[in-house]
Amino acid sequence: MKRTTIRPENVHQAALLRLLRDGGRSRAELGDVVDLSRSKLNVELDRLVELGLAEPDGLAASRGGRRSGRVRLSQATRFAGIDVGATSIDVAVTDGELKVLGHLSEPCDIRQGPAAVLDRAIDLLGKLHRDGLYDELTGAGIGVPGPVSFAEGVPVVPPIMPGWDRYPVRETIGQALCCPTMVDNDVNIMALGELHTGLARSVGDFLLVKIGTGIGCGIVVDGKIYRGVSGSAGDIGHIRVDDLGPVCSCGNSGCLEAYFGGAALAREAVEVARSGGSPYLAERLAVAGTLTAEDVGAAAAQGDAGAIGLIRDGGRRVGQVLASLVSFFNPGLVIIAGGVAKLGHVLLAEIRSVVYRRSLPLATGNLPIVLSELGETAGVIGATRLISDHVYSAN
Amino acid sequence: MKRTTIRPENVHQAALLRLLRDGGRSRAELGDVVDLSRSKLNVELDRLVELGLAEPDGLAASRGGRRSGRVRLSQATRFAGIDVGATSIDVAVTDGELKVLGHLSEPCDIRQGPAAVLDRAIDLLGKLHRDGLYDELTGAGIGVPGPVSFAEGVPVVPPIMPGWDRYPVRETIGQALCCPTMVDNDVNIMALGELHTGLARSVGDFLLVKIGTGIGCGIVVDGKIYRGVSGSAGDIGHIRVDDLGPVCSCGNSGCLEAYFGGAALAREAVEVARSGGSPYLAERLAVAGTLTAEDVGAAAAQGDAGAIGLIRDGGRRVGQVLASLVSFFNPGLVIIAGGVAKLGHVLLAEIRSVVYRRSLPLATGNLPIVLSELGETAGVIGATRLISDHVYSAN
Repeated sequence: MKRTTIRPENVHQAALLRLLRDGGRSRAELGDVVDLSRSKLNVELDRLVELGLAEPDGLAASRGGRRSGRVRLSQATRFAGIDVGATSIDVAVTDGELKVLGHLSEPCDIRQGPAAVLDRAIDLLGKLHRDGLYDELTGAGIGVPGPVSFAEGVPVVPPIMPGWDRYPVRETIGQALCCPTMVDNDVNIMALGELHTGLARSVGDFLLVKIGTGIGCGIVVDGKIYRGVSGSAGDIGHIRVDDLGPVCSCGNSGCLEAYFGGAALAREAVEVARSGGSPYLAERLAVAGTLTAEDVGAAAAQGDAGAIGLIRDGGRRVGQVLASLVSFFNPGLVIIAGGVAKLGHVLLAEIRSVVYRRSLPLATGNLPIVLSELGETAGVIGATRLISDHVYSAN
Repeated sequence: MKRTTIRPENVHQAALLRLLRDGGRSRAELGDVVDLSRSKLNVELDRLVELGLAEPDGLAASRGGRRSGRVRLSQATRFAGIDVGATSIDVAVTDGELKVLGHLSEPCDIRQGPAAVLDRAIDLLGKLHRDGLYDELTGAGIGVPGPVSFAEGVPVVPPIMPGWDRYPVRETIGQALCCPTMVDNDVNIMALGELHTGLARSVGDFLLVKIGTGIGCGIVVDGKIYRGVSGSAGDIGHIRVDDLGPVCSCGNSGCLEAYFGGAALAREAVEVARSGGSPYLAERLAVAGTLTAEDVGAAAAQGDAGAIGLIRDGGRRVGQVLASLVSFFNPGLVIIAGGVAKLGHVLLAEIRSVVYRRSLPLATGNLPIVLSELGETAGVIGATRLISDHVYSAN
C-alpha cells in the first residue's frame, strides 16, 4: 500500500507551508512576510488548500479594512518522530505545527541490533495509531546515536551500534510507515528540536552539546544543520584534551569522552566511592553494586564533595574543548543537553567559567551558555522538524 | 562626484552575472544551468546588455542547430582589491571575471594608523589608474589583519592595529574610489581567493589556515564565508594548546600564536641560535642582529636540524588545534597559507601527521591538507570576489 505524500509545487508554496508550521495566520499577515503580490499569494494559498496541505480557518480581526481570511496547515497532517538512544527509544506523533499529540518512551538497548530496535519503534507508533492519534503519516524522522550518511539514510561505522553499519534505516521505516522518511544522528535532531520549540528559536547560528553516554555537538548555521562533507561534523567526543589522559573506547588516549560523559562518570564514581572520597556514593555502591551518572547527580544534590568534584572536573574538560570551538565558530548560543546535563548548575557553572575565561572576548561578549529546557521531547520534535523541512520544500 | 554603480534588477540577472564571472559563454550554455525558460533567459540577458553589465561576444560553435550568441561581462568592468597586511600592502585591479590586470605590492607598517595606510592604498590604485588600467571602478574590496564588523565595515578591537578600532574603513575607501566597497578580515578574503581561483574552486566546505605574523582561519560553508554572530569566527590564534605554555600577547598563556606564527618563530630562532642548536641561524644572527621566519625556512632548506626542529614543533601545535577543528567541522579541504606556510613541506608533513592521526577517521578519510598555490594574489583576488558577490546580487 504505497501512498504518495503530496508536496508543494513551487518554492512559494513551500515557503508558505514552513511559515504556517510556526502557526496559522491571516492572509494579510502572510502577505507582510512573503515577497509575493497579494493576488499571487492568494493563488498559491488557494492551491495549497486544493492540494489538501492547508485549510481555511475563519476570519482574522480587522486591521482597518475587510477582515482577512485565516489559513492554517491541514489539521489532518501528522508527522512521526523517532529518537533512538543508546539505552532508550522515544516515539511521538505531532500535527503539522509539530505539536506533540502523543509520546511514548521505553528502555531499549541499541545493541539488540536494527531489526529488533526498529520493530519496537514501529510497534510503539502502531500503539499511537490504535489510540487514534493518526490515520496516515505525512512523513517520519528518525535519529540514531551515531554517524549517519544523511544522503543514503544509513548509519556509517557507528561505534556504539553493533550490527547497524549501513543498515537501511530510512528504507525500513519508510516502508513500514508508508511515508517519506529521513534519518539523522541524535544530536542533530536535538538541535533541530531546540531550533523549533526550544531556546534557539530566534538564533541562526548555535551549538548544542549533548552529554549522554557519549558526547556530541549539533552545529546549526543560518537555521540549518551543518553536517560537514561526510556527515561527521560535530563529533567532538574524541577531541583530545590531554596527551597523557585515559585510554578511550576508540583506541586513542585523552579523548573528551574518556574523561566525561555517562560511561566515564560512572567509572570514576566507583573509584571515588572505593577510595573513601564520597560516603554517599560508597553507600549507594554497597546497596546497588554499581553506580551511574544519576547517582553522581543525586550525591551532588546532597552536597557530597566527592561527587561535586567529579562534576567540576568533567565540566572543566568540556569547557576546555568548548572554549576552542567558541573561538572558532563564534556561535550566538550554546545549549548543554543530554542525560548528564541533568547534573545541572554545578556542571553549567564550571563549563561557563572555563569558556568565558578562555575564549576570545569578542566571541563570548553576548554568548549565553544554557541548559536545555526541552528534555526528552527535543529529539522527537527535532525528528519531525527534519522530515517536515523535507516535505515542505519544492520538488 | 558621486556615481551610482548599476546593479542587477532581480535574482535571475544576479545569478547570470555570477555565472558570467566564471567566464563568458553562449546563451545555450547558460540555459543549461539556470532554471529559466529560453525566452525569459533571453529577456534577462538582453536587459543586462542594455544596463551595460554584459555584452554580446559573437557566436558559439553550433551544437546541432542555429549557433547560439555568446555573452560575457562588460569588458569595461573593473574591480579593485586591497589586501592590508601587518607589514605589507597589496592592491590589484581586475576585470569582471576577476582576472588580475595589475598588481602592486609594497612594505607598509599597519601601525602607521588607518589614515596613512589607506592613503597608500589609494595612491597605489591611483598609479594603476594613471597606467590606464581603469577609468571607473564597479566596486572595491578590502581586507585588514584583524576582526571586522562586516555589517558596519569597521575593524573591531583589532589587537595588532593600533588606531584602527572602529575606523570607518569602508566609508573612507568607498568615498575615495567612488564605488561600493566592502571590508573583511584578511583571512576571509584569502579564503574567497582560494574559492575563486585556487584549490578550493569545487569545494563547498573548507578551511583556510593562515600562518603569518599571527594565525587565523577562514571558514567557508556552502561556498560562502561563515563569519559567526559577531564576526570573530575563525580566530583560532588564541586557542590554548597547553595550560603551562608561554605567555601570549593577548595576556593568556599557552595560546597557539604564542607557540607558532611569524613572531613566535623569530623569537625561538634566536633562542636556538644562542643555545648552539643551529650553526646556520647563529651565523645569520651574528650578521643581521635579528632573525625572521624566513631565516628559519632558509636554514631548514639547508638541512639545519635546529631549524627543522622548530618547524616540526610548530607544525605539531598547529596540527593539534586543527585536529580538533577537523573533527568538529568535517571540512572537504584544508589549505595552509600565509608567510610561514612558505616553510613548505616539512611544516605540511608535520601538520598532516598530527591531523590524520588524531582526527576522526570519518572526517579525514578523503581530506586533502595542502599548501596554498596562490601566494600573494589570494588576498587581492578574494577582495574583488567579496565586492563582486555584493555588486552581482539583487537589491
